[in-house]
Amino acid sequence: MKAGVLYSGGKDSSLMALILKNMGFEVELLTVNFGIYKSWLPALESATNLGFNHRVLKLDDKILRKGVELILEEGFPNNGINYIHHEVLELIANEYSVIADGTRRDDRTPKLNDNEIRSFEDRHNVEYINLQSFGYKTIKNITFNLFEVTNEESNRDNNSDYEVEIRCLIDEIKGHNFSNKLFPKHFQTRVSGWKNNNGF
Amino acid sequence: MKAGVLYSGGKDSSLMALILKNMGFEVELLTVNFGIYKSWLPALESATNLGFNHRVLKLDDKILRKGVELILEEGFPNNGINYIHHEVLELIANEYSVIADGTRRDDRTPKLNDNEIRSFEDRHNVEYINLQSFGYKTIKNITFNLFEVTNEESNRDNNSDYEVEIRCLIDEIKGHNFSNKLFPKHFQTRVSGWKNNNGF
Repeated sequence: MKAGVLYSGGKDSSLMALILKNMGFEVELLTVNFGIYKSWLPALESATNLGFNHRVLKLDDKILRKGVELILEEGFPNNGINYIHHEVLELIANEYSVIADGTRRDDRTPKLNDNEIRSFEDRHNVEYINLQSFGYKTIKNITFNLFEVTNEESNRDNNSDYEVEIRCLIDEIKGHNFSNKLFPKHFQTRVSGWKNNNGF
Repeated sequence: MKAGVLYSGGKDSSLMALILKNMGFEVELLTVNFGIYKSWLPALESATNLGFNHRVLKLDDKILRKGVELILEEGFPNNGINYIHHEVLELIANEYSVIADGTRRDDRTPKLNDNEIRSFEDRHNVEYINLQSFGYKTIKNITFNLFEVTNEESNRDNNSDYEVEIRCLIDEIKGHNFSNKLFPKHFQTRVSGWKNNNGF
């Protein structure tokens, strides 16, 4: 059975993909793009190095624009990112009957709570899977054994999170580097391949 | 790294064991016993058929007795079962640094909520993993492809859940078949081996 996994090239969504592959799913990694910046390239590279099928999901930039509007209103990115993630899932549910993302137990946003998951699954007759089984420490230990990773200061060319296009659009609207005020600098872990070149 | 998985022989805890094995953990399946009835035997058989190491954890029957007391007071088994599960986890945390059980997203009891998980992990410096990533439907589909299962009306000799010893103790205290009033008849799915004899 096919499973569509929202994929950023990070260790969480890479682990989600691997778990589903090992359960017998035919995994398709999906990276969303709203046509603002080629932010899918890092995810494509990670997916290719891991040997997974990868697909860029080109979506209407209305979703991104509404998310950015929320972020600018609130001066805080969390709800805007959460809005985008929920809208993306709604769209994917038209194409895939098993849908997964790499949200962990201790992630706060983007995140579907239990009621949202139940509603999402029931309305679309889909199955939704995330990494809620696992905490940060477990995922760190497991992925350290599985994947080669790079860890760099986040920029628009080394990650495929929603953040990249959000920031590009904010800077387009509000002026050069305005997004720095809303997003703190952080380090970005990206999966560059299998450790020991042996998969599991 | 070693992981202790609370194991009943059912499809949930069997899937949990498999996921951890595929992540590179050295899995030990643990079936709790309080010395009231040999309820570990079905779990031992399932574990053996799947090729996992299995260990019977003989625990003080004080835990079981306090759980049963709660069930008899309330006339309802949920809180008593939950009490026993939490106490069992506390004890296992002295021996294992990675601890897992087969509780699903839509399970209500026994279950650790997010705050209980955080407290449990922090107090004992352990990692806790469950099946919260998955809903009932997903687990049903996945395990159907992986495992041979039997499905019979539940009795004391075809399952290794806490329920078996709880019922034995209740019947011992309150008289023959009293536990039938507290536990509805239900069907019991038990893993009897790999499908197609090929593991994953």
